[in-house]
Amino acid sequence: MDYETPQFFRVMQYAARADRDVVDMVSGNPDWDPPEGLRDGLRDYAEAEPTEFQYPPSVGLRELREEIAARRDVAVERVIVTNGAGEANHLAMTGGLDHFDGDEVLLADPVYPYYAGRANFLGATTRFVPVDDDGRLDPAAVRAAASEETSVLVVNSPNNPTGAVYDADAMAEFAAIAEANDALLVSDEVYDHFDYSGRFGSALEADSPNVVATNSFSKSLAITGFRVGYAVFPPEGGPNGDLLERARTRHMLTNVAGSRPAQCAVSRALKTTSPEYYADCRRRLERRIDRFCGALDEAGAEFNRPDGGFYVMARFPDFPGSFENVYELIDEAGVGGMPGEAFGDSRADWIRFALVTPRVDEAAERLADFFG
Amino acid sequence: MDYETPQFFRVMQYAARADRDVVDMVSGNPDWDPPEGLRDGLRDYAEAEPTEFQYPPSVGLRELREEIAARRDVAVERVIVTNGAGEANHLAMTGGLDHFDGDEVLLADPVYPYYAGRANFLGATTRFVPVDDDGRLDPAAVRAAASEETSVLVVNSPNNPTGAVYDADAMAEFAAIAEANDALLVSDEVYDHFDYSGRFGSALEADSPNVVATNSFSKSLAITGFRVGYAVFPPEGGPNGDLLERARTRHMLTNVAGSRPAQCAVSRALKTTSPEYYADCRRRLERRIDRFCGALDEAGAEFNRPDGGFYVMARFPDFPGSFENVYELIDEAGVGGMPGEAFGDSRADWIRFALVTPRVDEAAERLADFFG
Repeated sequence: MDYETPQFFRVMQYAARADRDVVDMVSGNPDWDPPEGLRDGLRDYAEAEPTEFQYPPSVGLRELREEIAARRDVAVERVIVTNGAGEANHLAMTGGLDHFDGDEVLLADPVYPYYAGRANFLGATTRFVPVDDDGRLDPAAVRAAASEETSVLVVNSPNNPTGAVYDADAMAEFAAIAEANDALLVSDEVYDHFDYSGRFGSALEADSPNVVATNSFSKSLAITGFRVGYAVFPPEGGPNGDLLERARTRHMLTNVAGSRPAQCAVSRALKTTSPEYYADCRRRLERRIDRFCGALDEAGAEFNRPDGGFYVMARFPDFPGSFENVYELIDEAGVGGMPGEAFGDSRADWIRFALVTPRVDEAAERLADFFG
Repeated sequence: MDYETPQFFRVMQYAARADRDVVDMVSGNPDWDPPEGLRDGLRDYAEAEPTEFQYPPSVGLRELREEIAARRDVAVERVIVTNGAGEANHLAMTGGLDHFDGDEVLLADPVYPYYAGRANFLGATTRFVPVDDDGRLDPAAVRAAASEETSVLVVNSPNNPTGAVYDADAMAEFAAIAEANDALLVSDEVYDHFDYSGRFGSALEADSPNVVATNSFSKSLAITGFRVGYAVFPPEGGPNGDLLERARTRHMLTNVAGSRPAQCAVSRALKTTSPEYYADCRRRLERRIDRFCGALDEAGAEFNRPDGGFYVMARFPDFPGSFENVYELIDEAGVGGMPGEAFGDSRADWIRFALVTPRVDEAAERLADFFG
């Protein structure tokens, strides 16, 4: 499987060249404002002393790590601030592949394509577990697929692309599967602020030495371009305790450190942003989900209403989600989505729509008209 | 060999805990102001639209790449903007090791320890070529050491730690050695704005398909913490043309993209900073070099007056540059340097001093007193 971005590009370029107005629901960039504290952090940083323009600690600014550690209720030493969740997942997956026997990465199908692309690039083999009809991984299916060949299991909750959310019990089951197979559960929780079900549980709650949780501020603060994320590794001194040191070394020898202006701005935003900001963002998405799912109903589409995240996958009658049909939808309906085949086999007939545009209502009407 | 930062930390922590005032000449962070255009870039970015807070292109903001390409006189497609020179060197070294036969990385001794640390981490073998009495790599010695086992040759000019500067002819010889041995010359040119000899030549002038030039704005704009660097790869379609695509993929799967606030600020600074800023920075360093080398003469030390960069290495009579002696220098003279042994064997008796402090005069007096 190819990794995501070039495929995104193909679709986005097609939409940009279209002869008509197109509502872009292709990529997952928030379209709303970051909290004002983030801008304040940038403003103050612009006037900082030259010493503050020099290397932050390789593992991240201390105050930022402390804020993260307090929020996640873990020791600060376990936190590495990374260049977005991308690097956090990279450190976790390479660490798991190096540390555990076996060269297999277990992934959901449909999958966020970066996981599969990274596994392929690293020379690992991939095994896919199809989600059930609700778009969810069944722990029993994961348990059946896992083996001594498995060194990494990646779970993403709230999920891109299906919108599934796993609760603490499900996460504990995934962690137990990792433990039973001497493997690492990498739990990518970047959409954790976008749980509409109230059931989201972090993999950290399993308190397992076989878990690395990854996250970023890209979605929760609407700053995908800042590249500030983090990984929480098992504690040093315990089982799998050397994963942390190895990740610190890899991070240092790859990137030296993360970008300080971005870390400063995020640190300020975390200290000054009220819970209301996050609640507003959730409500905005929930309104969009209501309207979009209503239109999907009108269009006679099959879909799972997302429990979390930014995306809705849908299958339209006699209109499989191939690149060809997605292009037709751009040209004829004026709505851009991502073909399901970009995410694997099990939902190759579906189309993923990202609800990060203020024009969700318009897109919903256009789809209802086109399929109605 | 251990990589640099933990060893830096050991010395910096010792200096911080000392009972007396210590002039810190341990690490290479510029102590002067960035150009005003950089701050203007940050100020404007703080007020930008939300879309400007989202992912930049993975290979870097287009306007920044174009500015770099124009300055280096290369096609813009050859430029990947990286998370500092650290990631640029990482992409180049991993690319060379993947692409060429052999698993050996050829390095100067003394060496910037990140090169050796990265080679070790990647499972490569390292071979060291001692510099000559002037602190320079003799191309003949490099040619004698290179073999079919060599896949990467790393050269750093102006050099950390010796201050050597290689001209275009020497660079062409290093490139020819890489070509003759089917290997990659990685030319780290981060101190290129700090050439006091007027002889610096970029490896790009050799116009060889076996060259990757790496650089960053950390030193030239005094922003080591921003993490904006770049690598220039051989053109696609020519010999070794697939190095570029492989590096783009590795960059995307490791970091997704670099940090946009930092890239925006650098882009503005490049467009608005006059040559006088860079000339002032050079003059500041040259004054410091004059004074410091004068004191080294008084102290009876052996040293090479640097042709470029931030550092002076010196050997004092009966005072080899061990960690023990460096600690004594901190306690007794109030001057912190880096032990030569941190950089390899050939100058293990020497001490490296970074001239990035306004207190160079004071340090010079203290050293002259201590050894006088």
